[in-house]
Amino acid sequence: MTNPIDFYFDFSSPYGYFASARIEELAAKHGRNVNWRPILLGAVFKITGQQPLPSIPLKGSYANHDLARSARLFDLPYKFPTKFPVAGQAPSRAFYWVSDRDPLLAIKLAQALYHAYFVEDRDISSPEVTANVAAKLGVDKDQILRALGEPAVKQRLATEVDAAIERGVFGSPFFIIDKEPFWGSDRLDQVDRWLATGGW
Amino acid sequence: MTNPIDFYFDFSSPYGYFASARIEELAAKHGRNVNWRPILLGAVFKITGQQPLPSIPLKGSYANHDLARSARLFDLPYKFPTKFPVAGQAPSRAFYWVSDRDPLLAIKLAQALYHAYFVEDRDISSPEVTANVAAKLGVDKDQILRALGEPAVKQRLATEVDAAIERGVFGSPFFIIDKEPFWGSDRLDQVDRWLATGGW
Repeated sequence: MTNPIDFYFDFSSPYGYFASARIEELAAKHGRNVNWRPILLGAVFKITGQQPLPSIPLKGSYANHDLARSARLFDLPYKFPTKFPVAGQAPSRAFYWVSDRDPLLAIKLAQALYHAYFVEDRDISSPEVTANVAAKLGVDKDQILRALGEPAVKQRLATEVDAAIERGVFGSPFFIIDKEPFWGSDRLDQVDRWLATGGW
Repeated sequence: MTNPIDFYFDFSSPYGYFASARIEELAAKHGRNVNWRPILLGAVFKITGQQPLPSIPLKGSYANHDLARSARLFDLPYKFPTKFPVAGQAPSRAFYWVSDRDPLLAIKLAQALYHAYFVEDRDISSPEVTANVAAKLGVDKDQILRALGEPAVKQRLATEVDAAIERGVFGSPFFIIDKEPFWGSDRLDQVDRWLATGGW
């Protein structure tokens, strides 16, 4: 029995979106499952002193160029959102709430939320929008909308974010394979090789 | 006649060192030359507000891990230097001074300086150390030591750094191929594909 790949991501992270489109196939190739863990980079940036990529002089405009080029290379639909970044609380809480009831459905929800944000340009920071995306997958809309405001659901996300930081997660996407950390969608080639060889 | 690949790097940048060991072979495969351009990331960081990687909480300790792992993957000798980062003025000025006299020798000098810093753990910020590395390649030591203090040589480096920033260079390594920018040694795969296909 092998460990799952821990896959940390922020719903506002374009590189996280790219990774989300590729990680399941990569994991399956090596007989692994993926443990999807949405986090809030805002909480991480308070510790690292970083800023969202597109707001950094020079680096920001390159990032926009690199994102579009990477999307073309991976043949992924992608549009830089009108509102960026957005708060990840609603989609992340929805994910964990669904995950506790139906883990496979939660993965589908994460993919649908990323699609809503990075392809359809919908503002998933809105609980209403997030609930609509969930409802399309068969989740009861009123029930999930209520859940998003519950203290226990809020606390669940905060606990997950703290646990991620505790493990050294500082970016999105971030992968941990048998305690080995990999940061960035451009480390997926190394992840592939690590899974194939057991490390080097 | 194809354009050379512009290769920007800082002598304190471990990922720049990794790229320096691979870029000539990659370029030759596609019939390109490489235009080596040392820069000073300190000047760039004043604009972008960034800090040297290893000094950033969480990210720093991951970077050290990733660097050692990448060096093993690329099969490159590598030791994180005792003093890091170091000022790049002496090695960068030496590079341009030699380059104006013998461009091919300057490339050998850049490789030797990177080796001195990231393999032999020598402090190349010292003009004396840089001059010794150059002398090993046949450069007159007294002559280059004098040159390192000359206003024209200092100005030459400052002009190169300004020109790089003007072109949007904000990190090391940074490549520009026919106006197309690529940042990071982990973009060399895309550089390879870009050179082979002419872009996507």
